Amino acid sequence: MSKIYFDHSATTPLDTEVFKAMRPYFTKDFGNASSVHSFGQKTAKAIDQSRQKIAKFLNCQPEEIIFTSGATEADNLALQGIVKASKIKKPHIITSQIEHPAILEPAKELKKQGLEVTYLPVTKKGLIKVEEVKKSVKENTVLISVMYVNNEVGTIQPIAEIGQAISGLNKKRKNKIYFHTDAVQAANYCEMGVKKLNVDLLSVSGHKIYGPKGIGLLYVKKGTLIKPIEHGGHQELGIRPGTLNVSGIVGLGKAIEILSNKLTKNQNKKIKELRDFLIDQALKKIPKTQVNGDLDNRVESNANFSFSNAEGESILLMLDMQGIAVSTGSACSSGSLEPSHVLSAMGISDDLAHGSLRITLGRQNTKTEIDKLLDVLPDIIKRLRRMSPVK
Amino acid sequence: MSKIYFDHSATTPLDTEVFKAMRPYFTKDFGNASSVHSFGQKTAKAIDQSRQKIAKFLNCQPEEIIFTSGATEADNLALQGIVKASKIKKPHIITSQIEHPAILEPAKELKKQGLEVTYLPVTKKGLIKVEEVKKSVKENTVLISVMYVNNEVGTIQPIAEIGQAISGLNKKRKNKIYFHTDAVQAANYCEMGVKKLNVDLLSVSGHKIYGPKGIGLLYVKKGTLIKPIEHGGHQELGIRPGTLNVSGIVGLGKAIEILSNKLTKNQNKKIKELRDFLIDQALKKIPKTQVNGDLDNRVESNANFSFSNAEGESILLMLDMQGIAVSTGSACSSGSLEPSHVLSAMGISDDLAHGSLRITLGRQNTKTEIDKLLDVLPDIIKRLRRMSPVK
Repeated sequence: MSKIYFDHSATTPLDTEVFKAMRPYFTKDFGNASSVHSFGQKTAKAIDQSRQKIAKFLNCQPEEIIFTSGATEADNLALQGIVKASKIKKPHIITSQIEHPAILEPAKELKKQGLEVTYLPVTKKGLIKVEEVKKSVKENTVLISVMYVNNEVGTIQPIAEIGQAISGLNKKRKNKIYFHTDAVQAANYCEMGVKKLNVDLLSVSGHKIYGPKGIGLLYVKKGTLIKPIEHGGHQELGIRPGTLNVSGIVGLGKAIEILSNKLTKNQNKKIKELRDFLIDQALKKIPKTQVNGDLDNRVESNANFSFSNAEGESILLMLDMQGIAVSTGSACSSGSLEPSHVLSAMGISDDLAHGSLRITLGRQNTKTEIDKLLDVLPDIIKRLRRMSPVK
Repeated sequence: MSKIYFDHSATTPLDTEVFKAMRPYFTKDFGNASSVHSFGQKTAKAIDQSRQKIAKFLNCQPEEIIFTSGATEADNLALQGIVKASKIKKPHIITSQIEHPAILEPAKELKKQGLEVTYLPVTKKGLIKVEEVKKSVKENTVLISVMYVNNEVGTIQPIAEIGQAISGLNKKRKNKIYFHTDAVQAANYCEMGVKKLNVDLLSVSGHKIYGPKGIGLLYVKKGTLIKPIEHGGHQELGIRPGTLNVSGIVGLGKAIEILSNKLTKNQNKKIKELRDFLIDQALKKIPKTQVNGDLDNRVESNANFSFSNAEGESILLMLDMQGIAVSTGSACSSGSLEPSHVLSAMGISDDLAHGSLRITLGRQNTKTEIDKLLDVLPDIIKRLRRMSPVK
């Protein structure tokens, strides 16, 4: 049975071109980029080139890119690092109710340490309003962190508009408010120029963009007051110590270079067509089904359904037996039975949140695969509904 | 010109067997190990197997291994994590003057935050005395962190003895003292069973043991009170969040498995023979030369010389022009002109510290390569001494 992968928001297959770029930096060019000798200089050069590619994509300076072990570290560095560097006595940070745990958890920890945290609400469609952001700002606000694209429902937040609003506020303030966005789920599909987005900090993950796992980056605008969360060697301007992960950095650079390709843009169009077809057909074929999240402000890859009286976890397992990999919108995958905090924030009932399913397409998916899914999904839902105590 | 690599303490080439083990987890088996479906289960299983191999090597339980992005993160997690979890009002930590920056820098940061820090001195041969450790313990001591093998001079510290002494003290104490060792430079050559070593925490780096860069681990003994330094998902028992770096973890497991091979043990014997030959010949061929660090309690790979009236940095550059990669004992490589803190702690004069050179052998090095070094090094030193203002 050839398997079908519809879980690209969890992780993506490594692009073969990316692997080819990484290949020399395993057994052959293995030098430590901090070493003075030629082995070190060779890898240092590869890292420089990668940094330049990424800087071009983000429209920033190469030295504004700090390589991390992934987006979780980048998000932690942004939140903890800005707060640490702040001179405000009791800093206030603003984030949203629908962030990834890599933001929500450090925010919770900072709150425990005495910080003020505001969690912005979202509309029923999962969108954050610029007005809400502006309303939440206080004198002691030091950081606003709003995710670019939600990982569960794929909604695109108005980052550029929020950034512009914050820039406006900053003109009249003594203490600057920094603006961070977790752009992990956006990088494949959205405008990533940091100047257009008006952001001071931005997180990217390698493995969500057909790059390697274990590598990510934090864009840190020149002049931003930030402190490291780990201490050690002088790498990455002293903001992130540790021997540089050469193959990972080269892979991240290549994956980002591919994002600007014409081929990628065409693939994204194809992904959108398949996704739209899937939503259209699923709504037609399966009664009592809804799509969660805004349909217009949404990345090409994401379809998030709720099927009433059918458990998302059970749907996932039954699809898996058919060789089809999807995800639940809920947090069941991490062992919790709580409904998804994202769907709850959108006002979706617990029943529908528990019956949610996230299908996220990628570059390799085909019409045949979508047809296969549409072939088996209606029956699975029917069977589960028959077993459900609620009718 | 075929190049010669004598800088294995900076980083090692990835073992081809390790690369072979990692290979499937790039483009083929790419699932997120937290995913419920078969793609995720496949990588979760690979990670489990790697964890088991490592647990066997360290003689611990698989769940006592926390994967990190490298040893710098592992060291930071050990120091910051233990201090964070402590209920002592003003905790005291003990470390040594010759630690790696991945320990010295977080210790410095903790001191800034109000902690007490004691830096243990070393003998002229670069060894820490168990008595010194015991003498430094206070009522508020929460953690002792002593490196297993020094990265500059290769001296092996009496970790098992220190561990035993701390265990003895703990029997009569209310608040437990945890014992951590940075074992980055030890893993290739020394006993690594955590029970024999009497340690509660131990750091390992992938790329120093012919494994990949960007991966490491912290052994955390069951029952140890430790808090995370990054917050996010539920991975690694909540101690270290973020999508697991599958290929990195598989590579680390394979690299560690290879360490117990008979072949590796034979290679280590060969490395020692070459190193002893190198030291013997260098002392004979080059006047006014000394070997830094104890000759008996020393890993097989390390030779650290001081040549009076010859700058280490200049020797390095001239050897590099001959295609031979070595390192200076000093911190010049990181842009500083300060003499090595390790050699200074050993009471070595600034002149000799500036004239120090670290040569660290590895599995692939041959007698021919040592001969080549012995062929060119005496002339390089002679030329540099002629240029030196000091005669």
